[in-house]
Amino acid sequence: MSGILSTLANCLPSREKPYCGGPSVRIGVLGGGQLGRMMIQDAIDLDARVEVMDPSADAPCAHLTQRFVQGNLLDAKAVEAFGTGLDCITIEIEGVSVPGLEALERKGVRVVPKPAHIALIQDKGLQKQFFQKHNIATAPFALQMANGDRSALGYPVVQKLRRGGYDGKGVAVLKDASSSHFEGKDAHCVLEKKIDIEKELSVVVCRRSAYDTKCYEPTECVFDPRGNVVQLIVSPASITPEQKATCNALAKQVVDAMDYIGILAVEMFLEKGTGKIMVNELAPRAHNSGHHTIEQCATSQFGQLLRVVLDLPLGDVSPTRAKAAAMVNILGSPSVAKGSKPLYRGLREALGKPGVYPHLYGKSTVSPFRKMGHITMVGDDRDEVVELAKEVLASVACEAAP
Amino acid sequence: MSGILSTLANCLPSREKPYCGGPSVRIGVLGGGQLGRMMIQDAIDLDARVEVMDPSADAPCAHLTQRFVQGNLLDAKAVEAFGTGLDCITIEIEGVSVPGLEALERKGVRVVPKPAHIALIQDKGLQKQFFQKHNIATAPFALQMANGDRSALGYPVVQKLRRGGYDGKGVAVLKDASSSHFEGKDAHCVLEKKIDIEKELSVVVCRRSAYDTKCYEPTECVFDPRGNVVQLIVSPASITPEQKATCNALAKQVVDAMDYIGILAVEMFLEKGTGKIMVNELAPRAHNSGHHTIEQCATSQFGQLLRVVLDLPLGDVSPTRAKAAAMVNILGSPSVAKGSKPLYRGLREALGKPGVYPHLYGKSTVSPFRKMGHITMVGDDRDEVVELAKEVLASVACEAAP
Repeated sequence: MSGILSTLANCLPSREKPYCGGPSVRIGVLGGGQLGRMMIQDAIDLDARVEVMDPSADAPCAHLTQRFVQGNLLDAKAVEAFGTGLDCITIEIEGVSVPGLEALERKGVRVVPKPAHIALIQDKGLQKQFFQKHNIATAPFALQMANGDRSALGYPVVQKLRRGGYDGKGVAVLKDASSSHFEGKDAHCVLEKKIDIEKELSVVVCRRSAYDTKCYEPTECVFDPRGNVVQLIVSPASITPEQKATCNALAKQVVDAMDYIGILAVEMFLEKGTGKIMVNELAPRAHNSGHHTIEQCATSQFGQLLRVVLDLPLGDVSPTRAKAAAMVNILGSPSVAKGSKPLYRGLREALGKPGVYPHLYGKSTVSPFRKMGHITMVGDDRDEVVELAKEVLASVACEAAP
Repeated sequence: MSGILSTLANCLPSREKPYCGGPSVRIGVLGGGQLGRMMIQDAIDLDARVEVMDPSADAPCAHLTQRFVQGNLLDAKAVEAFGTGLDCITIEIEGVSVPGLEALERKGVRVVPKPAHIALIQDKGLQKQFFQKHNIATAPFALQMANGDRSALGYPVVQKLRRGGYDGKGVAVLKDASSSHFEGKDAHCVLEKKIDIEKELSVVVCRRSAYDTKCYEPTECVFDPRGNVVQLIVSPASITPEQKATCNALAKQVVDAMDYIGILAVEMFLEKGTGKIMVNELAPRAHNSGHHTIEQCATSQFGQLLRVVLDLPLGDVSPTRAKAAAMVNILGSPSVAKGSKPLYRGLREALGKPGVYPHLYGKSTVSPFRKMGHITMVGDDRDEVVELAKEVLASVACEAAP
């Protein structure tokens, strides 16, 4: 029996495992950014003690926990030292030491998600091979060693670094053989057929066991071409009921094939012309495309992850709180000097509008395109909500305080 | 200009006062219990830095803040020392040093609510005189010095200590001259005509200025006779639209007469037979009868209080998230030994039911009838929600861990 289960079970012998909370349940989180911060907001309600490790001393979670450890998340020894004695540990970023987590698992710490799944997702090449092996629809691809011939799939082709990319970084579209591309010793990559994308969709799925798996409704992502970062997420996606069912079936297929435990964001493409839906990539954690669940759904993605971590029944994923939601990121303005003190322009006015919910991440400095927060808009009418989101997006900015 | 306003205005000269958040906005809270804790959950979203003072080293807020000060809330010097340098300060308990807050006000700290209003509410005698002076409907009463003649209003009569009572403590119903009553040097009290109560109602009202005041819909309170503590709060109250309007008008009359700034719970009686609605008493803070606003309303009472404190526009109070809500407290079981480690029985099962939202307060020990948390139930049908609340109330218990 893992640490946490035995802790819970030891409280009192009973069929229903009474819940103790407080110092009896110690959850560790690798990463102390906004995702950990929003999880802490929900953990407070369950009196679960969340302890945090992050490389930055003033990470957004640093002051919201009884134990904050500054450390390198990719250092196996540091991760093992942080997690020893915890009941369970989870992540809010995929760039963490898998050997460190494996060592903790051997010590009886419940690790969510499983270290092998984090390793799989850390490598876009392994992800693609996994999709292929399990007949999960995905764009045609070829794996490529550093400095290899990039013409395998013809042009245009998308070159993705196998490791370390995020938010559009580590992705290049090559129009022809002369296009600038990643190279050098770290440039092991996936070459992927360039899909003619009609929509980018995402399904956040939570799986506690084969018998307790829940998919949120698919959302639709709109990217900002400036920073190649998601700028507008809309729920529900404007797709047919059949397409929704396909998205959720695909997400379910992925987690079942992996025997995944935890929360997973499954990003998908809807192909123009063919109408084919295929998996783009996975994120083994709470995700930007699930932030709207806080205001729209009966259970938020953060509450859901906590339930998996604590082995509590998953919550209702229905959009009971609002028929439609849209989410915009608050990014650092392109012109701010890196490391400036942030100033949120337009927030006061946004707060005066019904159905507008800002979430600032508590970052002490702003840089161009840095994610400083997000704002969720909810309402009964999808078009009105999208309109409101665009208005808010145009009027709220994170600039540098003078 | 008060500290916070100048801080905000100094960030950048502009009509709209851009919001800085983070260390630029330092809010102090006197009291580190569940109300402060739930306010911190909302403050995280506004990146407002909340600092806390509480007499107990392991208060529910102790580990959720950058600065926690252990101290006596009734000690003027301690309160002044805690609050010096803050932009604003608020309370989550009315038993605080008013002279300490007045000293802070003189130093330019924005104090919400005003010290004079806290002083008024700390004394039930002054409260009653205030109602009388401003023609605010309330039960007939007489003030009484310690050991005075209690027969002024005949019998039965309710004796309430003027100071220090809470959750039914400091209140006695005297059937006749021989009934046991409060006496001795601290027994200055209010004698109040015993109202034949049809319903106990409550309106939480938030007032940022004369031009920005919002009342939540009246709720209905059901008391548990064992501990004389509210056990079930239902929103909306089952009263007529005219009665609702009377309740809200009464709450508005109270805050306008006081020129109150902050959040105020106005507890009321609906008298049997006459149908008359009268004010019972006031609480100058977030209140048990407003907890359901977290899950039912567009803006929670905690978010609302923060908006007043930060001088941001008040949020929408409509029940946009659910048509009906009911709230039950999780109290320490009558049989637990005082100071036991808590164990929450039935919570796991409750979490498996849609529409059930537990909030544990993170108290490290349980005692009989101690408020350990609350659970809110929401849904479309009021009767079904009340039924679910009763089910949950019967099945969830806070006992002692073995």
